[in-house]
Amino acid sequence: MLNNIRIVLVNTTHPGNIGASARAMKTMGLSRLYLVSPKVFPHVEATARASGADDVLAKTVVVDSLNEAISDCQLVIGTSARTRGIPWPFLEFTQAADKSVVDSQQQQVAVVFGQERSGLTNEELDLCHFVTNIPCDEAYPSLNLAAAVQIMCYQIRMAALGKENVGFLGINPIYELATADQLENFYKHLREVLVQSGFLDPENPRKVMRRLTRLFNRTRLELRELNILRGILKSVQNAVISNEREKSP
Amino acid sequence: MLNNIRIVLVNTTHPGNIGASARAMKTMGLSRLYLVSPKVFPHVEATARASGADDVLAKTVVVDSLNEAISDCQLVIGTSARTRGIPWPFLEFTQAADKSVVDSQQQQVAVVFGQERSGLTNEELDLCHFVTNIPCDEAYPSLNLAAAVQIMCYQIRMAALGKENVGFLGINPIYELATADQLENFYKHLREVLVQSGFLDPENPRKVMRRLTRLFNRTRLELRELNILRGILKSVQNAVISNEREKSP
Repeated sequence: MLNNIRIVLVNTTHPGNIGASARAMKTMGLSRLYLVSPKVFPHVEATARASGADDVLAKTVVVDSLNEAISDCQLVIGTSARTRGIPWPFLEFTQAADKSVVDSQQQQVAVVFGQERSGLTNEELDLCHFVTNIPCDEAYPSLNLAAAVQIMCYQIRMAALGKENVGFLGINPIYELATADQLENFYKHLREVLVQSGFLDPENPRKVMRRLTRLFNRTRLELRELNILRGILKSVQNAVISNEREKSP
Repeated sequence: MLNNIRIVLVNTTHPGNIGASARAMKTMGLSRLYLVSPKVFPHVEATARASGADDVLAKTVVVDSLNEAISDCQLVIGTSARTRGIPWPFLEFTQAADKSVVDSQQQQVAVVFGQERSGLTNEELDLCHFVTNIPCDEAYPSLNLAAAVQIMCYQIRMAALGKENVGFLGINPIYELATADQLENFYKHLREVLVQSGFLDPENPRKVMRRLTRLFNRTRLELRELNILRGILKSVQNAVISNEREKSP
């Protein structure tokens, strides 16, 4: 039932946290663990802390980038301890769990945890459709990584058990939603066109692209809509390029 | 607020679990830890795993018996992974958290966790007013002790935050949202550019424009975002129009 929900750990430093996270997942019925460039894995301490969840560790997928870990996902939720300056689309914690469970009935869902000390970077958060945070005491929000995974998986399990109480969050996914990969390609194309049209300074594109990414991630683009947008970009590109050609004799 | 709720760990074997439990408590705003005959305490590993919760460890109360740990309590809740042969008065997990918070406003409350492998003995459960258990996957209910403490403290905190935590879908409207008027002007501008770039057939524009409208309405555009989009449209328009001029001499 929770097979379409994966836990993604980015740049984990301590192998013990990987093992403890695997155990935390399994106690709550989750089994798909992705590791993005862990410092050390496999490792004896990961195995020790996993206890009886060695089957989860054995089929853990190790990849080089967050992009790879979420490439086939239609919903990506990042976890953060802080409230950020630029606000990403935000879900309350229980809503994040509810939404993961509801969406996972038809889609691939990823819940992403950053490096132990620093959490997710802004670039990593750019890849997330929503951000959530675990309601900690503000005086000491220093949750251990595996403890954060444990609480998330617990809340997901509670959402799954109480599914009859779960209201319908967000849009009704009648149509196929775009995957993270498809979105990534769209953003590249968009950036290209913005530079070609003169809107974007390629030396300093970040803030604008981040805001546009945030906007479209929040929307949860349907594949059909994404194709319209790609079509628009192409037509603009053709117009601009033919213009360039005529200028340079 | 949660000062009247204590966590009691009975016969804990691994000092690391004591430290991790102290940290788990503090992240959720609990601070009163009682240890009944721990195997080793204090211990360097307890201190290490406590991380910044060393203040909780420092004022931990170590006693010889569960009786002593709960002597001044009006509500004692035991935790158990199993459903027992002899049924103790049972509370669902969220009810146990709710009751702890409600009762703690006037009473002393203890939540009791047994030894890592064996859990609470029947004699220890006899001292509890209620028993609860964390809803784990039945196939693997092997929660780490500190993970169990973490989930309990999280659920207690959620109960304490109560209903004011509910609500609030989607984006965090820190910034001004676009008005319907502003959106309408944006859609007109967008349509104009799509025709100029050749993407849209002005004879039959309806379906595409409806889809784009639906997309951006769903997003709930911020005014700041809308201004970026208008800027993009203008830059595209300039590129395309100058192209047209050069074509018709």
